[in-house]
Amino acid sequence: MSILKGAALVGQSGGPTAAINATLAGVIKGAIENSEAITKLYGMRNGIEGFLAERICDLSEIFTAEEGTPDEDKLSLLAATPAAALGSCRKKLPDPKADKAFFENLIELFKKYDIRYFFYIGGNDSMDTVAKLTAYLKDADYEMRVMGVPKTIDNDLAGTDHTPGFGSAAKYIAATVSEIIRDCAVYTIPAVTIVEIMGRDAGWLTASAGIPSLLGRDAPDYIYLPEVPFSMSSFMDDVRAALLRHPNVVIAVSEGVRDENGKYAGESAQSGVTDAFGHKYLSGTGKALELAVKAEIGCKVRSVELNLSQRCAAHLQSATDIAESRGVGAAAAYAAVAGKTGCMMAMDRQAGEYSVSFEAKEIAGIANAVRSVPREMINAEGNYVTDECLEYILPLIQGEMANKYENGLPVHFVI
Amino acid sequence: MSILKGAALVGQSGGPTAAINATLAGVIKGAIENSEAITKLYGMRNGIEGFLAERICDLSEIFTAEEGTPDEDKLSLLAATPAAALGSCRKKLPDPKADKAFFENLIELFKKYDIRYFFYIGGNDSMDTVAKLTAYLKDADYEMRVMGVPKTIDNDLAGTDHTPGFGSAAKYIAATVSEIIRDCAVYTIPAVTIVEIMGRDAGWLTASAGIPSLLGRDAPDYIYLPEVPFSMSSFMDDVRAALLRHPNVVIAVSEGVRDENGKYAGESAQSGVTDAFGHKYLSGTGKALELAVKAEIGCKVRSVELNLSQRCAAHLQSATDIAESRGVGAAAAYAAVAGKTGCMMAMDRQAGEYSVSFEAKEIAGIANAVRSVPREMINAEGNYVTDECLEYILPLIQGEMANKYENGLPVHFVI
Repeated sequence: MSILKGAALVGQSGGPTAAINATLAGVIKGAIENSEAITKLYGMRNGIEGFLAERICDLSEIFTAEEGTPDEDKLSLLAATPAAALGSCRKKLPDPKADKAFFENLIELFKKYDIRYFFYIGGNDSMDTVAKLTAYLKDADYEMRVMGVPKTIDNDLAGTDHTPGFGSAAKYIAATVSEIIRDCAVYTIPAVTIVEIMGRDAGWLTASAGIPSLLGRDAPDYIYLPEVPFSMSSFMDDVRAALLRHPNVVIAVSEGVRDENGKYAGESAQSGVTDAFGHKYLSGTGKALELAVKAEIGCKVRSVELNLSQRCAAHLQSATDIAESRGVGAAAAYAAVAGKTGCMMAMDRQAGEYSVSFEAKEIAGIANAVRSVPREMINAEGNYVTDECLEYILPLIQGEMANKYENGLPVHFVI
Repeated sequence: MSILKGAALVGQSGGPTAAINATLAGVIKGAIENSEAITKLYGMRNGIEGFLAERICDLSEIFTAEEGTPDEDKLSLLAATPAAALGSCRKKLPDPKADKAFFENLIELFKKYDIRYFFYIGGNDSMDTVAKLTAYLKDADYEMRVMGVPKTIDNDLAGTDHTPGFGSAAKYIAATVSEIIRDCAVYTIPAVTIVEIMGRDAGWLTASAGIPSLLGRDAPDYIYLPEVPFSMSSFMDDVRAALLRHPNVVIAVSEGVRDENGKYAGESAQSGVTDAFGHKYLSGTGKALELAVKAEIGCKVRSVELNLSQRCAAHLQSATDIAESRGVGAAAAYAAVAGKTGCMMAMDRQAGEYSVSFEAKEIAGIANAVRSVPREMINAEGNYVTDECLEYILPLIQGEMANKYENGLPVHFVI
């Protein structure tokens, strides 16, 4: 196979994570190391939306050291920086059959910059972009290789053992819930603390709050995931039972818990707004449950929303996650140069001691599929996860980064 | 002066911090190192309230290594553990003149365990306990030395340059707000993010959010402290002005901001409950401002409450704070053995390069005084802090701890 020579374009899309810049660092490294094929790496600012306005930057220039090799110091700082350094967008591409003009315009732009490689780092919605572009290119007279690179704290992408970004979020959640449990243990007055964790449809993040229980440490009393229909009366029974056992009740709940009719527990406090992909905008599940417990049981109760820090607390990255995030980004660049296109770089867990292999998988079967927590990883009562679930997550939170601090604060790299 | 020989009693009181156990570790170390005077160190569980029920533990036994010296490994783990390891309480002691029986009962308990040293680690309300006990002991026929050891994330204690626990909270806030700013920077849609920070009457914690600006890094657009009357219309003007400058507006606001009539910005969302000391229970200031911006300006807006992690995120302790917290605890033990009583151990900042000295100061002038952010450390508009304020805080967040992790999570020491 002859080498496809030309520029590459990389973008980040969807919600920020603490590891999406590590994946970008991996793509940059992989691109610079393959300079016989990838002559230059452009970054699109704010994803495909920014590229349409030709808002791009020259990442090769920024991240190539004097010797022509990747600048490891800069790449390490980039990998330690939370959120999408290139900016993000939530643009949904049109159907290639319905809006050819859109794609023709896009191809003209690719031609203008001689772009032959396209890397898109993101979650489900970003893989939809990869799939549509791939579908259009099949019949287009333009050779370009398109690779999706996964990231999402939600861990809900199909085709991969887990997603880059999830491990760091899970580590932050498990550590923070452990700290909150210590905080809650200091008083003797009966009190219920409800910790609301991200995860609209997939409960992986909320499940992570249970990791201390696997390690024999103090853990939340109950864990509620969106995968099991939420019953307010069972929840109240659980809270009452916990208060009989000890005064410092801590509960982890996914923002997305809903009853068997699909009504969100926090719906009363919702705005009803939906985003560009039609997802309901959620907030206030913890607060809604707090008010319900106060009204029904009457004890001291508070809710804590872990909020943005779950996805941007780069100061507590998982070293395993960061190594894998960088690895999957680099692997995408190598795979594309080797001829792969229309794929997402996935991670397969190996048998025996924990390790992963990187594999490019057809995007068609991956985009728009959601991987939830399987029912058998949740206990029969639907109020905790099984050890099997926690054992799946545990390797992903291992290891701490020695990220750089200056003047007492973590250093971020702003592109 | 002859040596006062007997047991010592140590307790923790008030709200948890990420450093209060470091101060406890200091007291333990100081006590064990002074075993010629302090024959045994008891810990009261849940502060003075637990002691009244004789709920105590033998800290000398737990923390003395085989050689009779302090067990440094255990003390380090304790210092890395958030929240009060002995438990806490919010009990207000009666007036010694009004309720002699209460104190007589207390003295009987001290006699029972031969307690000659009393260390109480806490904030304003705990120093009130120290002051009352000191006042009672003056005319009582029982020799006991009483020392207050400061801790509070709020940094609002009088008589000390700053309080142990504040530096770690400030570091967490500055780092987390920096991460949130990165998170907010990824989209191009105008959006306002309001970060609500603890601090009922003192704005020190909220001021810490401004540290990145002193370092030339991206920082919040505005900072509102409780020390300046809050005007909703000026706030809206500020938000509009910021939105003209850039789309990713981030605002730091103290939970305690209130208008010139003393009405809290978040009062509409309050429960009206007060705690045992008559403080109003606050929550929802950020949420109230979020709803106000949504209604008046109509842009995308969200609020983030840093909540419990501000005071219990031991995984991001300031090394300076932990060293000082341990130091002030040990200094209290040494000072008491040397004859001090009725004092709080304070920290005085030295001239020149940053350092502190520990000094025992009379409790009388310290208890129940609140040290707010001086008006001259806030800008004329009342919507930011001055560089002088940030330069005062900066040394307190310096240094990172190499705390122990096991299985991906920080190790906590449970007494």
